[in-house]
Amino acid sequence: MAEKLIINFTPTGMIPTKEITPHVPISVSEIVDDVLRASEIGITMAHLHARDAVSGEPTYQKEIYAEIIEGIRKYDSELVLCISLSGRNFSEFEKRADSLFLDGSLKPDMGSLTLSSLNFNATASMNSPKMIQDLAKTMLERGIVPELEVFDVGMINYAKYLEKKGLIKPPYYFNLILGNIACAQANLLNAGVMINELPENSFWSIGGIGNAQLKMNSLAIAMGGGVRVGIEDNIWYDTQRTRLATNADLIHRIHTIAQANEREVMKPNEFRRKMNMSTEFTDNYGRPVVGL
Amino acid sequence: MAEKLIINFTPTGMIPTKEITPHVPISVSEIVDDVLRASEIGITMAHLHARDAVSGEPTYQKEIYAEIIEGIRKYDSELVLCISLSGRNFSEFEKRADSLFLDGSLKPDMGSLTLSSLNFNATASMNSPKMIQDLAKTMLERGIVPELEVFDVGMINYAKYLEKKGLIKPPYYFNLILGNIACAQANLLNAGVMINELPENSFWSIGGIGNAQLKMNSLAIAMGGGVRVGIEDNIWYDTQRTRLATNADLIHRIHTIAQANEREVMKPNEFRRKMNMSTEFTDNYGRPVVGL
Repeated sequence: MAEKLIINFTPTGMIPTKEITPHVPISVSEIVDDVLRASEIGITMAHLHARDAVSGEPTYQKEIYAEIIEGIRKYDSELVLCISLSGRNFSEFEKRADSLFLDGSLKPDMGSLTLSSLNFNATASMNSPKMIQDLAKTMLERGIVPELEVFDVGMINYAKYLEKKGLIKPPYYFNLILGNIACAQANLLNAGVMINELPENSFWSIGGIGNAQLKMNSLAIAMGGGVRVGIEDNIWYDTQRTRLATNADLIHRIHTIAQANEREVMKPNEFRRKMNMSTEFTDNYGRPVVGL
Repeated sequence: MAEKLIINFTPTGMIPTKEITPHVPISVSEIVDDVLRASEIGITMAHLHARDAVSGEPTYQKEIYAEIIEGIRKYDSELVLCISLSGRNFSEFEKRADSLFLDGSLKPDMGSLTLSSLNFNATASMNSPKMIQDLAKTMLERGIVPELEVFDVGMINYAKYLEKKGLIKPPYYFNLILGNIACAQANLLNAGVMINELPENSFWSIGGIGNAQLKMNSLAIAMGGGVRVGIEDNIWYDTQRTRLATNADLIHRIHTIAQANEREVMKPNEFRRKMNMSTEFTDNYGRPVVGL
């Protein structure tokens, strides 16, 4: 039987605005609502980007991540929560790592770790070797699991290098994100080479940019991998771009395809056990938190 | 019969110093001597990095590139000369593009164009989408052929994007450089996928970092491609690292392998004709330069 299906839900991202789609959750309460709705449908983890309350622009501030995490865990303490450590808009380590220092019931389970510098459509994303190693080291010390973000074949080799240096520990979780303009393309050969390069003891999900999301998600469901899905990467429901998607639409479609493929969704606590993540939370004094 | 063998000679690069190897040419006269020696043995083109006369550090200054180009062309006016537009140490367009504005008999035939941002061992190399497009546009306007530098699979897709935007024109020349830590690795699967992604009407050479240079060069000779070879990427002659290579050593070995594989070295003027590069030079007033 195939491994259970990891659904990594990406509701917001850095790019979508209300002007582009009214369905993108921007405020804390919108993000919390979309995540809880998705969790009711069935997901394994959520990859969170915070936005500034006034401008709607991406923010690194741990106070906003804290509000989102608190809002979700009040109703759902199992869901695996991953925060973005993206440096696309913030270059200093202190900003990028800010939310890794949340504690107790506000502590994130995972943090994203992009494994090289790369170009997106209009901008370069800087992740210097030192920055990557400092973020990895901080997560290791804090007991936060890295979400290893891979946009092209060679970035997987850098994960192997971090493994050799003892900066990441198995088991690993990889996101393979295909279809960026200067990165691996959303085709079988590129996806196949990437999966082939993964180190042992790795879980992987595949995402795609825009129209490639559906293709790459379906491919992963067929082949025993997980999916990265949500408005962060894709705002349209159909490839003809006639209908803007809600996050719930996208999750429902994954469930339809998964059921037809005999793939059961992996529950958050099962993923926690496999990844050696805590299934219990403590407060700032190390006392267990009951009934989050 | 196989295509003739393009030998792209890379004598210096950004990294090697006299402390690391006494054989790396640093001064103008050393670089000119190594290129002329290689040309006597037989190469198609040279990829040049200039160094500051005092510090030995990489420099973008067109005055130094002019001295190198003049020194080579005084004795060899056919060899195809490519200048590095690397931004590893210089971030401003004006610096990176400086040598593209050399004229007449000092005008370079080609300029290197790295197709994304990426990480090297210790540093990030920034090549923003705007920078890449501005460099491509300047080369197009100046009639200088881009040397398309590819370190991972997806960078080839960016060349296709530049083609669609009309910023590069066929035929193309690609360097595929494998074995960087966060980029495509020096194995058959990665090399095969990259070659498979190349647009039609492309010439390609393969290079490798360190020990991977010999493997990747031999692979390319076997499979009908060209080679990128020289101390820039690899300072050792043997994989056991007992003997530092001279540039002439490395070129001689390529000739040995090429002859055994029935591959004839492509003459510079044949490459010029195939790439629609001028085989004649004019001075600053557009008058033909005789007897360079």
